[in-house]
Amino acid sequence: MGVENTGGVTRTEKRAAGRGRPRSRDGGSEDTRRDLLVAAGELFLDRGVARTTMSAIAERAGINQSSAYYWFAGKEAVLAALAEDNRASLKVAREQAAADAPAADRLYRVVRADIAQMLTMALPFHEFERAATASPEDFPSFAADYAELRRLLAVVIASGVASGEFPAVSPQSGADSVIALAEGLALRHYGAADRAGDVAHLGAEMAVRMMTSSPVPAARARLAVEADG
Amino acid sequence: MGVENTGGVTRTEKRAAGRGRPRSRDGGSEDTRRDLLVAAGELFLDRGVARTTMSAIAERAGINQSSAYYWFAGKEAVLAALAEDNRASLKVAREQAAADAPAADRLYRVVRADIAQMLTMALPFHEFERAATASPEDFPSFAADYAELRRLLAVVIASGVASGEFPAVSPQSGADSVIALAEGLALRHYGAADRAGDVAHLGAEMAVRMMTSSPVPAARARLAVEADG
Repeated sequence: MGVENTGGVTRTEKRAAGRGRPRSRDGGSEDTRRDLLVAAGELFLDRGVARTTMSAIAERAGINQSSAYYWFAGKEAVLAALAEDNRASLKVAREQAAADAPAADRLYRVVRADIAQMLTMALPFHEFERAATASPEDFPSFAADYAELRRLLAVVIASGVASGEFPAVSPQSGADSVIALAEGLALRHYGAADRAGDVAHLGAEMAVRMMTSSPVPAARARLAVEADG
Repeated sequence: MGVENTGGVTRTEKRAAGRGRPRSRDGGSEDTRRDLLVAAGELFLDRGVARTTMSAIAERAGINQSSAYYWFAGKEAVLAALAEDNRASLKVAREQAAADAPAADRLYRVVRADIAQMLTMALPFHEFERAATASPEDFPSFAADYAELRRLLAVVIASGVASGEFPAVSPQSGADSVIALAEGLALRHYGAADRAGDVAHLGAEMAVRMMTSSPVPAARARLAVEADG
């Protein structure tokens, strides 16, 4: 698994680099749409949704207004596109919670989809979450989507425990840990589109390993730590 | 493991809540010191270290300047304290990389210390990292400390693989995943000091489970995904 740590390169630097790259200005490329989403996300974070206008979004993206309106009818459409960005893995989770394959396979698919989604979103997930939490009226489905993803992961894990495929684990703690692993990888590797597939597979593998392991070594290690006081 | 998801509460809200709480102004309490560190971290992030003064730090913390100087001789001392915040788990990692206990026990200790540290830092780790990366001259040890922690984790994992205690895993990928899990949990639970112990134990348990599991179920799941195309 050739996943390299990004080391000292922060998303701030990545974004700064992104802003400087040559842009197509014909308004017709998918890059233009993405530049608008990134610019909108940054403005929503910096000044809030209410104080962000389409012209400010277009200006920050370095795109003229008529081209911006080619892609989005208005600010509401930009918001909707950003929110939709966040729902691809939920669709996979719904399918897998109801599917009939081994729990490990289903967990693998959901985690892989979730990491792949976060690595290709227009904003890093934790910043998207910040924008959504700051103005829930503008991102009405965010909190419910997040809760549903966590619930569906717990359903998959619980079914693996019930069938004996996974050794004892609390489905809620398992889901929390799997989400934390996915978010941690997304935080560390955001912006590295060329490695997104490898990172998604690594996270999915490690999530399955967490759930398929015997809890005995961890319980013994905890006892050893607690014996020290 | 009673770890509850914090759901829609972001660190921004937590911080806003922190700012509003009643403060002791006698300059003698540890809370005062911490308020100064938090205020300094926020200012370093907002405007950079060079443009942050001790008087601005004191003002933002709501503490008079003489009390601020009771705790810190100057901005450099504040920076040093913030950096020291980030080194507790490195000390544990150094000890455990050289220790003679089972690899699972040593991994457990390092991950637990790392999560406990991140949950009690004056700044969320990913923001601390952003400040450190934006002005490496002010946080000279940050990048080296981070690389060393990752290397020491890989040493512990490699020793577990070599002894047969851990099934096959790449020590680097294992270290990346363990760090991602720890950082993801810290991102999600930052500010919940009352649950810090539980979260640290949960993360340490899951890290040990990742490393002690057979890779077979994950490999089979990956094959199933790839067969779909």
